[in-house]
Amino acid sequence: MFDYIGSFEHAISALKREQRYRVFVDLERKAGQFPHAVWNGPDGMRDVVVWCSNDYLGMGQHPKVIEAMCTTARSMGAGAGGTRNISGTNRPVVELEAEIADLHGKQAALVFTSGHVSNQTGIATIAKLLPDCLILSDALNHNSMIEGVRSAGCAKQIWRHNDLDHLEQLLSGAAANRPKLIVFESVYSMDGDVAPIKEICDLADRYGALTYLDEVHAVGMYGPRGAGIAERDGVMDRVDIIEGTLAKAFGTLGGYIAGRCAVVDAVRSHAPGFIFTTALPPAIAAAAKASIAHLKASHCERARQRLSVAATKSALRKAGLPVMPTETHIVPVMVGDPVLCRWASDLLLHRRGIYIQPINYPTVPRGTERLRITPTPAHDGRLVEQLADAMVWVWQELGLPIARRSRRLGSPSLAVATG
Amino acid sequence: MFDYIGSFEHAISALKREQRYRVFVDLERKAGQFPHAVWNGPDGMRDVVVWCSNDYLGMGQHPKVIEAMCTTARSMGAGAGGTRNISGTNRPVVELEAEIADLHGKQAALVFTSGHVSNQTGIATIAKLLPDCLILSDALNHNSMIEGVRSAGCAKQIWRHNDLDHLEQLLSGAAANRPKLIVFESVYSMDGDVAPIKEICDLADRYGALTYLDEVHAVGMYGPRGAGIAERDGVMDRVDIIEGTLAKAFGTLGGYIAGRCAVVDAVRSHAPGFIFTTALPPAIAAAAKASIAHLKASHCERARQRLSVAATKSALRKAGLPVMPTETHIVPVMVGDPVLCRWASDLLLHRRGIYIQPINYPTVPRGTERLRITPTPAHDGRLVEQLADAMVWVWQELGLPIARRSRRLGSPSLAVATG
Repeated sequence: MFDYIGSFEHAISALKREQRYRVFVDLERKAGQFPHAVWNGPDGMRDVVVWCSNDYLGMGQHPKVIEAMCTTARSMGAGAGGTRNISGTNRPVVELEAEIADLHGKQAALVFTSGHVSNQTGIATIAKLLPDCLILSDALNHNSMIEGVRSAGCAKQIWRHNDLDHLEQLLSGAAANRPKLIVFESVYSMDGDVAPIKEICDLADRYGALTYLDEVHAVGMYGPRGAGIAERDGVMDRVDIIEGTLAKAFGTLGGYIAGRCAVVDAVRSHAPGFIFTTALPPAIAAAAKASIAHLKASHCERARQRLSVAATKSALRKAGLPVMPTETHIVPVMVGDPVLCRWASDLLLHRRGIYIQPINYPTVPRGTERLRITPTPAHDGRLVEQLADAMVWVWQELGLPIARRSRRLGSPSLAVATG
Repeated sequence: MFDYIGSFEHAISALKREQRYRVFVDLERKAGQFPHAVWNGPDGMRDVVVWCSNDYLGMGQHPKVIEAMCTTARSMGAGAGGTRNISGTNRPVVELEAEIADLHGKQAALVFTSGHVSNQTGIATIAKLLPDCLILSDALNHNSMIEGVRSAGCAKQIWRHNDLDHLEQLLSGAAANRPKLIVFESVYSMDGDVAPIKEICDLADRYGALTYLDEVHAVGMYGPRGAGIAERDGVMDRVDIIEGTLAKAFGTLGGYIAGRCAVVDAVRSHAPGFIFTTALPPAIAAAAKASIAHLKASHCERARQRLSVAATKSALRKAGLPVMPTETHIVPVMVGDPVLCRWASDLLLHRRGIYIQPINYPTVPRGTERLRITPTPAHDGRLVEQLADAMVWVWQELGLPIARRSRRLGSPSLAVATG
């Protein structure tokens, strides 16, 4: 008989050997105290500062959002009770979809239980409904999009990340009348760089392609109403399908697509990952709607986030840390080695009470392991200073290269390049 | 240029032509009043009785469950804030996983954002980790399991539904040392029949196969602690991996697998649908844990559900309606035609305020379209009587065959076979 347990144990051992085995940090977030949280570690409970949350604006603790969740749970119950088709379509989900469609200036929207499912089943379904569809996928697209492309089972071509010439070359190589689906992201979450959406839409127009844009790391944070980079760039109406999440800047759970009625209705009617799964609870839908509505009108969260991001980038750069250049709220600091990356994270957590998860392969390519920092409106100047101090200490402990020390830490302009 | 919108509209028209286009019934559930709900229909808001909820025990409105959700949302916020690996592992999710492992008597458990995702990414990952794995899948497995089998990309064989001889034939045809994964359900949701779990485990032992059992329509409802049919049958320890949902009898959202540490850890470390998605909100996890803990100790919900199911089956049978024989809480009434099935559902809703979703292809095979009724502890004798009266009226309106009328409705033993 085959040794099943041995096989699973072998797979885990391989991860451990490669230093890729992940131990989850067990946190207890405290509403109203974000980014402070309680870490349930080997030595018991301990206060820590979270610097790697995807609750980018801290909306998960916003009183309006929590209140909408609790009020709705008390009046409508905890769960949806069924799939959307079989008794699970609840008023708050319907209202949430209207709110999302309005946010993106689209005819309709459809909510899924996660952004991952939105992409996986959304991309697959759209592509399957187009005869002999060719999918053109950016090389750095998220796993959920890759899963969607795979599930579609049609022809695909990968264009070099954000490379318009390569995209045009592939588009021009396909028959003019063949359906083509360009799938890409606005903000790439691990590098923090941004796609040239307008130019991609120009190419889509020229070569008759449909555009599918993932804005999960942008919604809530960019554009005058928080609809994302496409809104900021004034090209939202040129993108055919916008996919987003309710679980990052909107602080709750779930994902969605928005687009023309025919597209959304076709996905609603054909996508297995939508049809055969329980609807989002009314309480979650109400909380997400409250969050979107708030961020449509309120600008202070976005303004404070920008200040916090600028302060963090500036402090880390001044301290001589290898901050990767980005124009977004994502602040990656390069380590370039999986073991050192994990050690850096461990030292920050255990010795300084700062939680930043190491980002290793397969989330990023090998050799580009990094710490990924996401400053929020709640990270004030004092926390930024603590972070810079702690990271410099860790870099020194591990013999990682520091470009030059900042004046604040003494020894101005002293170049240190060790390890 | 290709006509994209025309293509999507064409797909929708095809569904409409086949009477397979789905219009979702927009409901507002009222906590504390289940199964009563408010239907937001074409003529405004209207009270209806829901007879097709998968909130099988009404736990979605249980005060303990709602309280756990609200208390946790107020103390920890609305969302998890990240993937499990990147700042999203929260205390309530960790505690929920311990509760699930205990429920099923397994070493470990892993929570996903839905039961669909559990199966899709769980089955795919387990099979991929076993070299040259052969998957043996029951012919009536749910779409989520089929998606999992497909995503695995390995060899598969479909065994005739609940047919032990066929399963043995396929098992005996494979090399003794080849890894084999048997995937099946305990309660099949559309027919309400039950798998011979013990006999399948006997075959698995004999031919050295791993067993993966979907108990989503059984957890909470069967067995002394509500762990499912495998618990009821005393064979829970013989099943390798048990998959369940938190969104049906437990009344909340999410799915899970439970099994030996090595299996669960391997899935945790490799499954894309787990790794790359935001964790369940702490409030949902706390609500689910409260629900499981309650149903482990409390038997009255299960007892009352059994009474309600028995009363419903008996009343419908006495009224001469074609109730399909089942030994479970699922009461399918055969119509056998997609148009009549939809009409029956529409008449019940519009004219009698009774909501039972029609079940048409592809959820069931063509020609077996049905109404699927799920009596809960909250459906009392008066509601059962109303249901039987309303359905007889609908059957007569549509000229559907009624075996014989019950005495209650007059004309005892009068055989009516029209339509």
